[in-house]
This record gives sequence, C-alpha cells and structure tokens, in this order.
Amino acid sequence: MRASVGLSPVDTDAVRGCIDAVLPMRHAGTRKVRIAYELSGAAGAPVVFVAGGISAHRHVAANACDAAAGWAEDLLGAGRTLDPARCRILAFDYIGADGSLDAPIDTADQADAIALLLEALGIECLEAFIGYSYGAMVGLQLAQRHPTRLQRLVAVSGAHRAHPYAAAWRALQRKAVALGQLQCADEQGLSLARQFAMLSYRTPEEFAERFDAAPTLKNGRVCVAAEDYLDAAGAKFVARICSTAWLRLSESIDLHQIDPAQVTVPTTVIAVEGDRLVPLSDAVTLVEGLGLNGSLRVLRSRYGHDAFLKEGDRIDALLSAALRHNITGETA
Amino acid sequence: MRASVGLSPVDTDAVRGCIDAVLPMRHAGTRKVRIAYELSGAAGAPVVFVAGGISAHRHVAANACDAAAGWAEDLLGAGRTLDPARCRILAFDYIGADGSLDAPIDTADQADAIALLLEALGIECLEAFIGYSYGAMVGLQLAQRHPTRLQRLVAVSGAHRAHPYAAAWRALQRKAVALGQLQCADEQGLSLARQFAMLSYRTPEEFAERFDAAPTLKNGRVCVAAEDYLDAAGAKFVARICSTAWLRLSESIDLHQIDPAQVTVPTTVIAVEGDRLVPLSDAVTLVEGLGLNGSLRVLRSRYGHDAFLKEGDRIDALLSAALRHNITGETA
Repeated sequence: MRASVGLSPVDTDAVRGCIDAVLPMRHAGTRKVRIAYELSGAAGAPVVFVAGGISAHRHVAANACDAAAGWAEDLLGAGRTLDPARCRILAFDYIGADGSLDAPIDTADQADAIALLLEALGIECLEAFIGYSYGAMVGLQLAQRHPTRLQRLVAVSGAHRAHPYAAAWRALQRKAVALGQLQCADEQGLSLARQFAMLSYRTPEEFAERFDAAPTLKNGRVCVAAEDYLDAAGAKFVARICSTAWLRLSESIDLHQIDPAQVTVPTTVIAVEGDRLVPLSDAVTLVEGLGLNGSLRVLRSRYGHDAFLKEGDRIDALLSAALRHNITGETA
Repeated sequence: MRASVGLSPVDTDAVRGCIDAVLPMRHAGTRKVRIAYELSGAAGAPVVFVAGGISAHRHVAANACDAAAGWAEDLLGAGRTLDPARCRILAFDYIGADGSLDAPIDTADQADAIALLLEALGIECLEAFIGYSYGAMVGLQLAQRHPTRLQRLVAVSGAHRAHPYAAAWRALQRKAVALGQLQCADEQGLSLARQFAMLSYRTPEEFAERFDAAPTLKNGRVCVAAEDYLDAAGAKFVARICSTAWLRLSESIDLHQIDPAQVTVPTTVIAVEGDRLVPLSDAVTLVEGLGLNGSLRVLRSRYGHDAFLKEGDRIDALLSAALRHNITGETA
C-alpha cells in the first residue's frame, strides 16, 4: 500500500496518512498494525525522518495539513537545518502509541515498522534519521537492522541500552500507574508517573532557578514551589495519552539493546552533560563501539534530557554540522 | 527531669530513656512531646550527639542496653573517631518519628527538642554534633538557635536549605503515599515512596555496577534488574515506619531553612560529589555563608547521599580530622 507517492509537488507539501501492515514482533508474535505517518516539505527533496520521545508523534511541526504546532516546532522552519523548503520531513506515531497493542514492544519492532513504512512510501533511502531519546534508540535499531534505509543517523540523548538507573526510575513510574489502577484512579497514577518522569527529563539547575521559593502550608500540608508546575505537567499528559500506550512504550525503552559494533551507518551521537536518563558515559561507550562510524558532540544544558526540545538554536547548529553533506549540499 | 546523670561509670555505659517536654513549635502551636534518647560510652568523656536521616533513630550502634546493630554501626567502635571508650554518644528519636504528631514539624523544632533534652540530661555543652542528611539540617538549626550547646558541628550531606529539585522529588514521594491512601493501599504507597527515595539516595554509577542485566518478562510485563532490590527496600521500610511519621518528617526537610551567616559555631561541612539530593553547589553556598566558621570537605562516592552510611573508613577519616581537637585531645 502506497499512500503518498506520485502526488504533484503542490500536493506533497504535506500528507498525512496511514498504512496497514503485518509486523513480526520480537516479544509479541506477529501482529497487524496500523502505521500512521506525516510527510511534509519540498517535493523531490531529500527525506529526513524525525523521531522523538515516547510521547512524541507524527506531527513534528505545523504544515499545510495541520496548522497546529508540532512537538519539534523550534527545530523545523525557514533558516533551520530542517527547512521544509529544502527537505522533506517524515515522522510516524510509534507502534503502540494509540493504546491498542497491550504487549511488550521492542525498539526493533519500531525500526521494522519504519522499514515497512519506507517501503510503502517508495522511499528507498533516507538522507538522515534524526532521533531524540526513544527516537535515538529506534534510529540505532534501524541502522543495525536496515542499514540500506538511511545514509546517516543522528542520535540525540539516546544510546545503545537503557541505563540501569534510568530503567529503575521508569519501573517505579510504571508502579505508580499500577497503584492508581488498583481502584480505578488510573489518571492519578499516570499523572504521578509523568511527574516523576519530569524530574528525570530536567535538571536540578533548572529547578533551582525556577522554583527557589519557600514552601507554603495548605490545609496543614507542606507544598513545595514546584508542585503546581508538576501537577500541571501531569494533567496535561493524562489528557493526551492513555495508560496502556504509556506503559508499553515506557517498557520498550527498557527492552532496548543494540550492539554498536553492528552499526555501519555513519552516526553522530549528541549527548547532554547533565542528562539524568542517558549519562554521558553511555554516549561515550556507544561512540567507542561505533568506531570509525561514530562521532560525539556534547552539549551542556540546564534542560538535561529535554535539551533537544528546549535548545532550538544549539541543536540546530549541531544538526547543521552533522547533516551538512546531505541536506545543504555543501562539501567537506 | 534528669534521667541519666549521677550514675556510676559502669551504669552509664548505656542508658535508654525518655523525657516529657512542652515544645513551642514553629508551625504547630505548643505541644507535649516525649523525647526518647540513648546515651552510651565512657562516663565522664565528652558527649557527641549523632543524628541521621529522617528514618534514623536513637539506637546508633550496639551497646550494653541493646545488642542489636544500630544505623551507624560502621562509624562507632574501637579504633574509630567515635570510640565509645573515649566519648559518650547521644542520639534521639526525631520528634514525630513515632507517628503521634500529625502536624508540620520544622527542623527548628527538632533543635529546640535537643536543647530541652540536653538541659534534662545536665549536659551543658556537646563536644560536637555530627549530623547526616536531615541530622545535618537539625545540627545547623541547633548551632543557629542554641550556639552555647555545642562546640563544633559536623554537617554531612545536608545544607542550609532543601534544594528545590530535591524538594520536588520528596513532594512526589508524598503524593505516592497519598495515592496509596486513596486506594486503601497505604503500605503500597509508602513502599513506592521509599523506592523513589532510594533512587535519590544512591547514584547511577552504583546501579550500573549492580544491576547491569537485561530486563525479563514476567506475566507479559517488563521487569528491570533493580526491581527486586527496590521492592525489598520498600517492604523493609514499610515494616518499620508508619505513613504519618514519614510524611511529616519528609515535609520537615522541605521546611528547613537557616541563615548561614547567623551560625557562629565552628562547622565542618562534608559534601559528596554526586549526591543527588544535596548538590555540591549548595554545600559551597553554605560554607561561603559560614565565613570563617566554616570549612568544606568533599568526598566522591558511588553511594551519593548515602555515603555517610556506606563509606565507614572514609567518613571516619573526615570525622577524625574535624574532631581532632575535641575528642582525641590532639592540639593544632
């Protein structure tokens, strides 16, 4: 099934579609899945796949199809490395993101789904795959399993494995959801899980700047300065994702494992010093394993793991350097 | 009321007692409290007060009164700086630790309770107060509010304030307890809170060493390598502390605030690089505020915030240097 090929340049400005596929999964048998994608940008231009964290989706930035802001709005636009006038952006909804698949999902499954999608769209080879967080893990799987499908990988804030400490942190978040589910307080459990996750996405430095106020007493209880912010983050999250989807994608991060030595695609690893989920040491191990195929760029950011979403200018500069040969046509 | 003075050297080897006192509290009005203490070591020797984290208690180490291991066993004993043959060790149960006081408790209240206890025991002035974590906060309050009661303070892994990020982390732990209470699953909530707390007490480095194994699938769910350890830590905690006590003492950490410039007692601040609750930057700010009264010692430990409990030899060396003039009788 090919949903968006053969359209005229004007039509291809933005396409949203989905394909039905049969996916042999690593831990869950063979399943029918629907792969939802969005493709936007200049027709005929090189295609760049962009994949974000587990709560990201196919709508990366506002386009002709959907004027609402996307999840990586700051990184796409005129003048950016990912300028829709110079490249096409492809993104998808992760397998399991709709909550319909209540089974263990591996990052390998996501990579295989992407390969099926590329096949369906008639895209032989991506100019680049840019993955952030979970998306970096999926990109590494794609590079290991389907090396002919991408010319270059940029893996931001994600590595060859889930770090054992980060895995423990996520396991406890899943327990918060389970605690909520005990008596039908699913939303409170998921909200609490998200709030704990927020602490792993950000840094003490940011909290020290934003929430440097004495606690208050409310109904005889102590409330600290960050609580309203965290509550709001939890409520916002609960409104847009269901427990099953979140649980299975959270697990998926912890199932992730690739062998860097098996990756032959040129890969730029971007790590953030101070990332509480993906320590710099894991990025270094990954790059060492990649050998001549890997290079490392390190960013210091008060936003920690979320730097990709919050440091538009700096990430753009790093992407520009990583993709120079491909997207901008410059030579070395 | 004086419970342990005037006894013979043999009798004072170890005394456990309690005093009833009236305590004007900072946020909870004037309350009747029972202050439970333990005093052990050589009669007539200088008295050192030892105070630990919020789940610590008066039984610091095995003694003639109670042969069970205490919570700081590694730091007390023959050959250690805190050798019961050369000093007397005093410790107490924090106000609120028995769960009978369901109201906001300030570190200032704990310091005032200690002053009442010293008065009752006829101890005019401590040779030193050694506080770890919450105990360091309480020690700073004692130094600010009752400077004549101690000659020297050693504040380990605790500072002049609760760091906003650490405060947020604790607030979410309290929400886990609240979620459990909502579900009539108090113990599960408290266990989950403890498990999240464990992540703040330790470091990614330790987890990477101890739990570097692939996750397993149990009943269709992903279980990561640290889960059994964390479950056990939660269960052990639930068996020995009640929700009310824990909630109020957790809050108490977040209420803590002193002005370092008001502390005139000579203070050694021991900070652990990599402590996820008390960042080195806060220890530096504290020492800068202490001016000529403060000095800083920094330790790098894979145990992070828990270094005090896990690095007996190294902490002992630091205590020895800090207390040299007082306990060992050496001169400068």
